[in-house]
Amino acid sequence: MEGFLQKAKASSAVIATLDGATKSRVLRKMADALEEEMESILQANAKDMAAAEENELSSALKDRLFLDEKRVEAMARSLREIAALREPVGRVLEGWRNDANLRIEKVSVPIGVVGVIYESRPNVTADVGALCFKSGNVAILKGGKEAEHSNRAIAEVLQGVLEAEGLPREIISLLPDSSREGVAYLIRQDRYVDLIVPRGGETLIRYVSENATVPVVKHDKGLCHTYVHRAADQEMALKIALNAKCDRPGVCNAMETLLVDRAIARDFLPKAYEAFRAAGTELRADEEACGIIDAALAAEEDWDTEYLANILAVKVVENIDEAITHIRRHGSGHSEAIITEDYRAAEKFLDEVDAACVYVNASTRFTDGGAFGFGAEVGISTNKLHARGPMGINELTTYKYKIYGEGQTR
Amino acid sequence: MEGFLQKAKASSAVIATLDGATKSRVLRKMADALEEEMESILQANAKDMAAAEENELSSALKDRLFLDEKRVEAMARSLREIAALREPVGRVLEGWRNDANLRIEKVSVPIGVVGVIYESRPNVTADVGALCFKSGNVAILKGGKEAEHSNRAIAEVLQGVLEAEGLPREIISLLPDSSREGVAYLIRQDRYVDLIVPRGGETLIRYVSENATVPVVKHDKGLCHTYVHRAADQEMALKIALNAKCDRPGVCNAMETLLVDRAIARDFLPKAYEAFRAAGTELRADEEACGIIDAALAAEEDWDTEYLANILAVKVVENIDEAITHIRRHGSGHSEAIITEDYRAAEKFLDEVDAACVYVNASTRFTDGGAFGFGAEVGISTNKLHARGPMGINELTTYKYKIYGEGQTR
Repeated sequence: MEGFLQKAKASSAVIATLDGATKSRVLRKMADALEEEMESILQANAKDMAAAEENELSSALKDRLFLDEKRVEAMARSLREIAALREPVGRVLEGWRNDANLRIEKVSVPIGVVGVIYESRPNVTADVGALCFKSGNVAILKGGKEAEHSNRAIAEVLQGVLEAEGLPREIISLLPDSSREGVAYLIRQDRYVDLIVPRGGETLIRYVSENATVPVVKHDKGLCHTYVHRAADQEMALKIALNAKCDRPGVCNAMETLLVDRAIARDFLPKAYEAFRAAGTELRADEEACGIIDAALAAEEDWDTEYLANILAVKVVENIDEAITHIRRHGSGHSEAIITEDYRAAEKFLDEVDAACVYVNASTRFTDGGAFGFGAEVGISTNKLHARGPMGINELTTYKYKIYGEGQTR
Repeated sequence: MEGFLQKAKASSAVIATLDGATKSRVLRKMADALEEEMESILQANAKDMAAAEENELSSALKDRLFLDEKRVEAMARSLREIAALREPVGRVLEGWRNDANLRIEKVSVPIGVVGVIYESRPNVTADVGALCFKSGNVAILKGGKEAEHSNRAIAEVLQGVLEAEGLPREIISLLPDSSREGVAYLIRQDRYVDLIVPRGGETLIRYVSENATVPVVKHDKGLCHTYVHRAADQEMALKIALNAKCDRPGVCNAMETLLVDRAIARDFLPKAYEAFRAAGTELRADEEACGIIDAALAAEEDWDTEYLANILAVKVVENIDEAITHIRRHGSGHSEAIITEDYRAAEKFLDEVDAACVYVNASTRFTDGGAFGFGAEVGISTNKLHARGPMGINELTTYKYKIYGEGQTR
């Protein structure tokens, strides 16, 4: 492993200084190669699917794992989109002259060696590899065991292009030892690795945070709230709440708890009840809400549960302050929304709620690199430092100061 | 301790939303209070000085510890300067409309609760407390044991102003348990603490990096090089090298190693030898340089040693590539300089050297929040993530996305 990490580190000097046009050209070749090697990728995926069958994985997991021609083509298309994004390295973020007349430029540069730990969907291997490449970083990828053959086939296609272009194949690699011990080793190699991005269950993220010496940008859970303020347009509130909960209940930007202002609860809740019942949503409500609609009584732990399913917790709050207090206590700092026509309430919510993304009159489902316009995403950071919210190629860069003098001394 | 951290976390909601004018006014009151309480601060400092005498601290350490009227006045002046800085919270860093016509704004916000671990100079207590306050953060300060009384007196003055203004005193506090166990506890409380900034010796920084679950921005060592390229203006090179080494040898942005291009070594080194001899600098040179000047032969570990003293390692390199390779291997990613009149060499050095600050024709001594124009600094980050190089008030903020909709769903 140490030999591998040394090579990865050494390769980072090569990719860091590669020009943007070359990187885009190589990415387009990778896209072509994925389509050309369709057969070998689908064969590898068939092995993973057979194992999934044998291990009786859920149909949801099998669907995430499955590849067909259309999905491989989508993977190639995604690489071409990444190739077309604006060059993230070398952006002048700020620039000024200091008192000594030095010209100081703050310029974006690659981070170096980035380790990404993720699960299931094999397209992540291609996407994250390409995002790291575009931003001048070496990618060390650790996918899930269930997608082992698919990930290896995809990585080999990408590495084949790197080699054909005379670039080190370590620029995009799978972690050679993908066991638990391999991960434990990787996250403590701050000599070689500059960033770890864990995407996955709470246990993985907690383990990585507690044991890493390499800096970590977490892709942690999303416990998102939508607060229907007393001055809400109730029809809009219904539409947004339904979308936030039901569009894709299994993702991190889905709503888990609906907060309803007491002043409108008797009016709004019955309408919400009908709408969610029609959508097949299971409702768990606090006592006050249960007095208005026919829902199961929520337990204390419901306020802290990321259901990742078509279940919704419902609570009546006295006013915006109680809503903000509830969110401060139970939210995960991911995405929070208020529905209101009231200017002061909107401003207060945006200012006082501490989350990566705070919304007025829109669905939390928009917290997403694609929806933000970043192109593909590495993940959605629930860290407060370095990157917060959707992480695209710009969030895979850091900066350095370039300082131009004419002999200045202090 | 947990009760204290809970209060600190709760206070962060208060300071985070305090408006800029109020924060500036409170900071100016703190400056006034430091001057008004001059006597009690000097008395507390006298206790620390007596203990320093007893414990036979070096005269350099005693000088760092010592306070007199002038130094307390300088502390107050620094607070007034921080008060006058541009409000760091609420800056709109970017803004755009996405495809769904949502208006997205990326806005600077405070980080939350910031723990800073530092040594010796008591003015750091006032400076860092004020920088955190200005940027809307709660500061938990852990100074050195040798400055215990001085730090407590200063913190009490600041807290007195907070209380008089109806603000929680926990907004600026000393860590209640300042023992090693107290620090060990603090750095693992990611529930309450958002960032740890360790400033100090390598052992402290290593300990914090290895054991913290809270994100860490290191203020690590500076092993800085100056490379005199073959196309250098040699007179300028001499002036810059002398300044980088001798102006203040004990600080992290001082030069430790001088790299000299082989093509000019026979011409440049004798002049450098004379100049450094006159400045009392001890030279440790590689074999080739020793063939030209009368210096001690450097050992392998000299290339990795941050002398923090008037000692300089000297090495002859074949060309710019060897210089960059040497820096990649031995540099600490802090500040690196090339002296050259050659455009391509300058560009190559700026692009390929991976450090927080890379200079052409200037002294590495400029890596400093004050010299950059940031006002006072929390430290100089040798992290690659979040903040790199001098950390001022803007580096004590993170961001959130405020998203303004009109009913958008996905």
